[in-house]
Amino acid sequence: MNIIVLGGGRVGTAVALDLEKDGKFGVTVADQSERILEKFHEHHGIATIQVHLDDPRKVRRVVRRCDLVIGALPGAMGFATLEAVIAEGKNIVDISFCPEDPFLLDGAAKEAGVTAVVDCGVAPGLSNMILGHHDATMDRVDRFECAVGGLPEERTPAWEFKAAYSPADVIEGYTRPARLVEDGKLIVRPALSDTEQIEFPGIGTLEAFNTDGLRTLVTTMSVPFMKEKTLRYPGHVGKVEILRDSGFFETEPMRVGDAMVPPRALTSQLLFAQWELTAEDRDLTVMRVDVEGVEKGNKEPVRYRYELLDRYDEPTKTSSMARTTGYACTAVARLIEAGAYEHHGISPPEFIGRESKCFEAVMTDLAARGVVFDKTTSVVSDHGG
Amino acid sequence: MNIIVLGGGRVGTAVALDLEKDGKFGVTVADQSERILEKFHEHHGIATIQVHLDDPRKVRRVVRRCDLVIGALPGAMGFATLEAVIAEGKNIVDISFCPEDPFLLDGAAKEAGVTAVVDCGVAPGLSNMILGHHDATMDRVDRFECAVGGLPEERTPAWEFKAAYSPADVIEGYTRPARLVEDGKLIVRPALSDTEQIEFPGIGTLEAFNTDGLRTLVTTMSVPFMKEKTLRYPGHVGKVEILRDSGFFETEPMRVGDAMVPPRALTSQLLFAQWELTAEDRDLTVMRVDVEGVEKGNKEPVRYRYELLDRYDEPTKTSSMARTTGYACTAVARLIEAGAYEHHGISPPEFIGRESKCFEAVMTDLAARGVVFDKTTSVVSDHGG
Repeated sequence: MNIIVLGGGRVGTAVALDLEKDGKFGVTVADQSERILEKFHEHHGIATIQVHLDDPRKVRRVVRRCDLVIGALPGAMGFATLEAVIAEGKNIVDISFCPEDPFLLDGAAKEAGVTAVVDCGVAPGLSNMILGHHDATMDRVDRFECAVGGLPEERTPAWEFKAAYSPADVIEGYTRPARLVEDGKLIVRPALSDTEQIEFPGIGTLEAFNTDGLRTLVTTMSVPFMKEKTLRYPGHVGKVEILRDSGFFETEPMRVGDAMVPPRALTSQLLFAQWELTAEDRDLTVMRVDVEGVEKGNKEPVRYRYELLDRYDEPTKTSSMARTTGYACTAVARLIEAGAYEHHGISPPEFIGRESKCFEAVMTDLAARGVVFDKTTSVVSDHGG
Repeated sequence: MNIIVLGGGRVGTAVALDLEKDGKFGVTVADQSERILEKFHEHHGIATIQVHLDDPRKVRRVVRRCDLVIGALPGAMGFATLEAVIAEGKNIVDISFCPEDPFLLDGAAKEAGVTAVVDCGVAPGLSNMILGHHDATMDRVDRFECAVGGLPEERTPAWEFKAAYSPADVIEGYTRPARLVEDGKLIVRPALSDTEQIEFPGIGTLEAFNTDGLRTLVTTMSVPFMKEKTLRYPGHVGKVEILRDSGFFETEPMRVGDAMVPPRALTSQLLFAQWELTAEDRDLTVMRVDVEGVEKGNKEPVRYRYELLDRYDEPTKTSSMARTTGYACTAVARLIEAGAYEHHGISPPEFIGRESKCFEAVMTDLAARGVVFDKTTSVVSDHGG
């Protein structure tokens, strides 16, 4: 079985090394950067291709001889890549989190007989699988709440924040209106709204606020209450708001001296220096997923709470972001390779969660890599809308 | 007596109207903007000259036929203007708060027999006079502390701040290291440091932090403890720090796309929209000056506290900033015109304060215009350095 990983960044690297360890895959990494590819040379089971995948024809050419594609390119390249891979008739597990609606490619994937799993990270990703799992097994699901964040272990002033991805994408997440579902209706709230503090054992107090993280769940699930929040160390929203409210996130170019400059371009550049998660920075991933509903044959509603606290892996120097995202992705890759998951068309992770054996297999795979959910069950007391 | 006001901005306007009311001065306002000069046309006692005072020769020409000059131009033009006025042999009261050391012109002013009062606003200005007054009358002064701020009445998010002057100057004040005197030694601390909360009757809690406001006092006074702080509504420092610490105040141009942009230039422009004190905005001025020391013939140290809370004047639509700064300036102008204050050379306001009759006259003039200090005296309990 040959698997090609498109993109050799943090996540692509974790994916490639994890798949190589299995010893049964021929793994190839494609990236435009020779410097990035160099680090794979010591791994004899991993081949490399230096190529800039900015052109669908190049994508089709490099995936042609493989059995499965892992899409680990930046979000802006994600959709075109997905389209090219589908056109080439290859199964794909994608973690590019492209801004476009992946279901636009559902027809093409069905026609090509391709299983295309998208958004296959932590959240979106594992959170969707958890909801999909309970949605399939319960009589009804009343509520889904997810709070998730990637944070640096060290709270360095002024921001106490590091991002494993580009500040431009972080800022995009802080400006895009957040869609949530209340009482069965789709509601839109500003990003950064409904800020609340949440206690997390092992970390302390975190700040949770609305972001547009439900993605495919908004259309694939008919759960009357659904929301997704992002977690940061306390004070983060205030810092971001002062920039946003002062116009530093505006994309419209403004005149500064002789130049026309979009404020966000300068802001992204300044914040890159502040937010960059370097090889020395230890990060952690924290997530809480609540699913409430009624089990088949029962009357009393129950709440399942999944809590994840994952940390940077010292021995392999793998960031928690790469671990959690990458191992969610490889777990699904294994399912597809084993023929355990097949769904022609676009599969968001909730589709995988619906199949209990697949869900269990993913959880087992993650646990074997130290990504362990703490699951608790409790009776739901009334707490209004 | 003919007085010319250089600059018809907020303060220049308040100065010109106040002097015209006296009925004994011929008042002329010089400004480059016809729009600005128009508003003086209804005041028959005020003449106008449209001229851009960017050239010392132009300054000398327009001041030639007057007896006293009021310098109310932007800080960047202040020093060159001062120099030109002195060269022309004219007395001047200046409120440009130029960044240069005015004492560089002391020799020239002495030689020309010119009385040149600089920094003649609120702080610097009235605060210096208060210290000068007590320094002259007391046996010794142990401590001088000044906290001062110009604030909007309405606390509009996100900044709860409006500036009557350019954001570039505000930012300059937030970046220039603050000089203070401790134990007789000149100390330099970062701007925005030593943040503390102070309660002000009639306003509530304000945030005080170090700024470089002592100016001439650092060299003219030998008081062992001196410091000046700026006052803002609480939270201001945190908002400014996140910008400063992220690099938004840097002046070194950085590449953004094809352009080279100094971050501070873009920041100033964005904050102008946030901070601009418009004609509709009501502002207030708050100041607390503490002078501690021992009166002649006494042993016990006492503390004099001067508190000022001045508000926007509805009937005349005059900002508090213009009132307090302008009326400090006109009070001193009257002293000079009356021959009550004469000091050839550069006079910072502490020199005027030293002369008790002048100090009382300034305070009386201000009180007549509703700018009233609340003065309290208390015994000093030991409070360490």
